[in-house]
Amino acid sequence: MLIVYEGPEGAGKSTQLRLLSEWLASRGRDVLAVREPGGTILGDEIRRILLDPGSDIVPAAEALLFMASRAQLVERVLRPAVRAESIVLVDRFFLSTYAYQGAGRGIPDDDLVAANRMATRGLTPDLTVLLDLPTDEGFRRVARRGAHDRIEQAATDFHARVTAAFRRFATPEWQQRHPECGPIAVVDARGSEGEVFARVHELLRERWPAFFPLET
Amino acid sequence: MLIVYEGPEGAGKSTQLRLLSEWLASRGRDVLAVREPGGTILGDEIRRILLDPGSDIVPAAEALLFMASRAQLVERVLRPAVRAESIVLVDRFFLSTYAYQGAGRGIPDDDLVAANRMATRGLTPDLTVLLDLPTDEGFRRVARRGAHDRIEQAATDFHARVTAAFRRFATPEWQQRHPECGPIAVVDARGSEGEVFARVHELLRERWPAFFPLET
Repeated sequence: MLIVYEGPEGAGKSTQLRLLSEWLASRGRDVLAVREPGGTILGDEIRRILLDPGSDIVPAAEALLFMASRAQLVERVLRPAVRAESIVLVDRFFLSTYAYQGAGRGIPDDDLVAANRMATRGLTPDLTVLLDLPTDEGFRRVARRGAHDRIEQAATDFHARVTAAFRRFATPEWQQRHPECGPIAVVDARGSEGEVFARVHELLRERWPAFFPLET
Repeated sequence: MLIVYEGPEGAGKSTQLRLLSEWLASRGRDVLAVREPGGTILGDEIRRILLDPGSDIVPAAEALLFMASRAQLVERVLRPAVRAESIVLVDRFFLSTYAYQGAGRGIPDDDLVAANRMATRGLTPDLTVLLDLPTDEGFRRVARRGAHDRIEQAATDFHARVTAAFRRFATPEWQQRHPECGPIAVVDARGSEGEVFARVHELLRERWPAFFPLET
């Protein structure tokens, strides 16, 4: 089972992924949590290059580096783990590419679809949890966090395009054009960590009642 | 003017590129010689990863890393140099991708075309000099050279597929299917460095007599 967390900066992806991972592990489930870019030796080298504020990287090279990290992660980690029937949780996947490199940097959608196909060779998430947050709220959360990498440092209008893109991905029209992304469920990311986790858990319980039983 | 040198291992690309570069420079021409992968800070980092015999890199990640290096080289070096009317000589470009990552590693042609389009955004070589050598002769030259990087170390049948691919690229049928590669001229790479250089020079003279006059 492959579950992806997506959403703009500040939506709480990493926190929610950690909460679900801990919840599953505490119930004896075989769970693997990874983040993109990274998750392999090659991916970590690429991550270092991509996030270093000193790196000079043109938009197409950035997109292709993300895809190279993804290809390595898919073949060496995700596909073997799914085959071994682990529950695999991924922090960012297809949607982040379409948001950051597509809407943000202006790489044509068709080129990203092709590069994604090369990187993933048919591996489709069983579910993408798209954490949805009003733009202002996301920016406020990020501002509180400080510490900016190369991509977080990009101009405000870049992040406005990224955030608008994530909201577009929540529509059935967009999802129909991108079957490679698999099913996408939008979750309201406002409120406390616990409130958001309860929404995610409810969503997973409806979909896979055997894995996510009602707590008594 | 963008001139690319291509061919299998041992065909003499680097030597021929250097001879032409020196010939042009000695006649006061503004010439720039680069090699792939590399030619930029990002490209050199990627080159180090790609050629390190200790790197674990799946085929799709390898192809995407080459493309990332190419994207950076095109935007930061090749396009500006061509715009400034330099004569730009490149050691490996499109054909090496189709040979090594396509025929060699089995990445589908369509995916490589799309990734190349993302990396080059319409930059087409004015001429590709394809140095052609019988398979046995190339292997003999490489064996004499020693010192093997990660790609040179690949199995013999990998290199046989690569060499066969380069011979296929010499056919008009293949070239018609790949207009992004621009015109390709096949040059017999047997004989001494000087003999091969004379053949290349003759070819360039026919095409651009003002740049490559008959020596008196």
